[in-house]
Amino acid sequence: MDIPKENFSEWYNSVIKDAELCDLRYNLKGFVVIMPNAADVISRMYRLYEDALERRGHRKSYFPALISEKNLEAEKDHVEGFAPEVFWVTRAGKNELEEKMIMRPTSETAMYPMYSLWINGKTDLPLRLYQSGPVWRYETKATKPFIRGREFYWIEAHDVFATEEDALAQVREDMETTEEMIHQSFGIPFIFFRRPQWDKFAGSVNTYAADTLLPDGRALQLPSTHMLGNNFAKVFDVKYMDDEGKEEFCWQTCYGPSISRIFAALVSTHGDSRGMVLPFHLANLQVVIVPILKKGNEEKVLSHARGLEEALSQVFRTALDSGDDTPGFKFNKWELRGAAVRVEVGERDIESGKAVVVRRDTGEKAGVPFDELARRIVAIGEEMNISLRKRADAWFSGMGKEADTLEELRKAIENGGGFVKVPFCTDSREGEPCAEKVKEACAANIRGSKYGKEEIPEGKKCIACGKEARIYQYASRQY
Amino acid sequence: MDIPKENFSEWYNSVIKDAELCDLRYNLKGFVVIMPNAADVISRMYRLYEDALERRGHRKSYFPALISEKNLEAEKDHVEGFAPEVFWVTRAGKNELEEKMIMRPTSETAMYPMYSLWINGKTDLPLRLYQSGPVWRYETKATKPFIRGREFYWIEAHDVFATEEDALAQVREDMETTEEMIHQSFGIPFIFFRRPQWDKFAGSVNTYAADTLLPDGRALQLPSTHMLGNNFAKVFDVKYMDDEGKEEFCWQTCYGPSISRIFAALVSTHGDSRGMVLPFHLANLQVVIVPILKKGNEEKVLSHARGLEEALSQVFRTALDSGDDTPGFKFNKWELRGAAVRVEVGERDIESGKAVVVRRDTGEKAGVPFDELARRIVAIGEEMNISLRKRADAWFSGMGKEADTLEELRKAIENGGGFVKVPFCTDSREGEPCAEKVKEACAANIRGSKYGKEEIPEGKKCIACGKEARIYQYASRQY
Repeated sequence: MDIPKENFSEWYNSVIKDAELCDLRYNLKGFVVIMPNAADVISRMYRLYEDALERRGHRKSYFPALISEKNLEAEKDHVEGFAPEVFWVTRAGKNELEEKMIMRPTSETAMYPMYSLWINGKTDLPLRLYQSGPVWRYETKATKPFIRGREFYWIEAHDVFATEEDALAQVREDMETTEEMIHQSFGIPFIFFRRPQWDKFAGSVNTYAADTLLPDGRALQLPSTHMLGNNFAKVFDVKYMDDEGKEEFCWQTCYGPSISRIFAALVSTHGDSRGMVLPFHLANLQVVIVPILKKGNEEKVLSHARGLEEALSQVFRTALDSGDDTPGFKFNKWELRGAAVRVEVGERDIESGKAVVVRRDTGEKAGVPFDELARRIVAIGEEMNISLRKRADAWFSGMGKEADTLEELRKAIENGGGFVKVPFCTDSREGEPCAEKVKEACAANIRGSKYGKEEIPEGKKCIACGKEARIYQYASRQY
Repeated sequence: MDIPKENFSEWYNSVIKDAELCDLRYNLKGFVVIMPNAADVISRMYRLYEDALERRGHRKSYFPALISEKNLEAEKDHVEGFAPEVFWVTRAGKNELEEKMIMRPTSETAMYPMYSLWINGKTDLPLRLYQSGPVWRYETKATKPFIRGREFYWIEAHDVFATEEDALAQVREDMETTEEMIHQSFGIPFIFFRRPQWDKFAGSVNTYAADTLLPDGRALQLPSTHMLGNNFAKVFDVKYMDDEGKEEFCWQTCYGPSISRIFAALVSTHGDSRGMVLPFHLANLQVVIVPILKKGNEEKVLSHARGLEEALSQVFRTALDSGDDTPGFKFNKWELRGAAVRVEVGERDIESGKAVVVRRDTGEKAGVPFDELARRIVAIGEEMNISLRKRADAWFSGMGKEADTLEELRKAIENGGGFVKVPFCTDSREGEPCAEKVKEACAANIRGSKYGKEEIPEGKKCIACGKEARIYQYASRQY
């Protein structure tokens, strides 16, 4: 990756600004405006992600953005976790509201009382719904565009099952969806962790989450899945009648990919020193045509370029940049914005019957006969997607490290960051003081143990307390 | 239309409930849960509408859901119109906020301060952005699902131009978009009105709106377009530098199709006494396969039906209803939910090599050879779309009436409603008392004059004040 690691933050902020992805000047703290160059990609990501959920049997729904105070307060751990960060609606028009409402920070307490009304027998299960849209959290930490804000765009899927096994199978399926979308489709590598008990979703039994690394070696949480057990079912009375006519509490999971944040990971993972690089199927412009004009040949070249634009528009998101800027200026502009393929066409190209085709990620140039352009660009698109993912994978796997002592961990973290595998006493609540110690000594957070692949240390001591290590955990700096 | 007009409201409420379109039991007044059977259609309508806007040069954006008090208050008429119906966020976590915020009821005051930052020269114009999502208004009128609520889903497009002519051309283009989507694609007839001055959008110069009629003869406003002149531009400093280097205020328009409400019109316009009927391209299920089982042939028939399901799923949104209910029960269930085409297959059908195909809107049945099914269903889909639109058009044009006196108007309104053309003194502010008089005497509202087709009465008197009539207006009961 040719984004300098030390300057990642600077690079990120300048791409956000120069590629016109979002504007931070909105006059409410923590809120930003997502501009078209980002919104188009985010919209495309939404469609793909929604399709992936629907293929797996989820259906769309729209629940209200507001939730009554009463609902929020029903689940003890949940309200404790979320109360500090909710926005309160207390007035409407000139009326003080008798019942205050919150803006949803997440929708368990909006949805599950309805689930209780909808589910009677086993034939109503599984119930698997999702909704897409913004949620609001009163963040007090420093905000960063697309990564952490007081408003973000996500999908939340809330699923209900008759048995614990079915719910756990859903966690596995969510991981498959994550692999399909985040890794295969968007080309972003990640590790799927089970979070330690002190770091789980408020009200859940277990939290599982896909963490990627940004170029500075710090972890960024992407989708998370929560096994809710029947914690919420008991509070909101989500029950079904079993075969013997006995009422049983349902088992629930929820899954939450933040599209805003995945977009941040997308930009960061694939970008380079020239700006945005996007997988071909996500790019706003898959093809940008730049005519190379010289005095006297403008009409001839432009007319040819317009013909190309018309033909390629049938197949790709295409634009012809016929503006007055120099070709060099245009090259830079469209590289910055992540146009996937550039087609240059000048008088000599017309004579030779070939256009110059330049691929955004590698900068590779090739002369391609005009009538083969579409076919060749399809192939380039496929190659680009695979190559971006492979490049990201290679970098990511090189960021895996190990440490047995706090000193080793501190050095690993300081030396480029990444995920450092460390022996740990326990990931139950009792382990939290050890995690605190790791944080103080190494500025690193315990992100969890690898999901689906139990890693048990043999003969090792906990990196923090020195007691027998029963589990490997992964530590990293984090966003 | 075979929805009894007197019972329209009852019919509507029962379809909403029985077809599981939305649930009114959410525990906040005026807020409802949109269930999957409606959400899927709404999502499809969103995609089509967004594509239509993008084809015309609009780009997507996401502006915050919250707006500062200061912004809301900047435009005098606007704040006067909206202040009574906004939800106020006054607290976050445990903190009373120093600056209160409102939940957007519409986004002029969120977007235009940013437009002011983005627009410098003529090359930045036109600027045409839209966003999709919910808005919130503290409705005090009676709410009705999808028609009027405290939360609804819409698209809002906000456009900026250098000249008044360009802005007025945009109003015409918005009308074309409305025609393409609402009428051609969704099959809903409407009249495009210019609203009288006393009934325009708060802060606008003129409001234009597409009104349809529900089966009870009452008008329902669908998309509206507002010519904002430079009212907001002056307040939010939206300016550009002209060719002489002089700063000029921009001209603005905004366009707002409420997808929730268009969905209500869709259900009401095409439905019948059996339930939902939807245009083929919008139906959740385009094909439902119902196997006709008899003791002993279950496996044979089901296996054949599964083969059909697999083949038809390649082309249509298809389901096989292999449940235990009787065929008659299944027929009713899928008719209620608006499955577009039913394919029945039993042992005799297999032997004869044909399935029974039933079209939802007309109930027409036909025997279709298995290998011609896909082709035939494509044709049925196309026929259905055209036929639904034509049926709606025929009914709608029969609802046009005229009246010269309050007495005639009152009778026309009582006798089935519809749009009644009446001679009127003026649609400037001075006409408002006459509109009040019409409302009191006839329970009818003055909706406006036909857009794009000046209709001037000759030698007629205003229906309310008896002075010379200068303009034809249309009156109707309304939602």
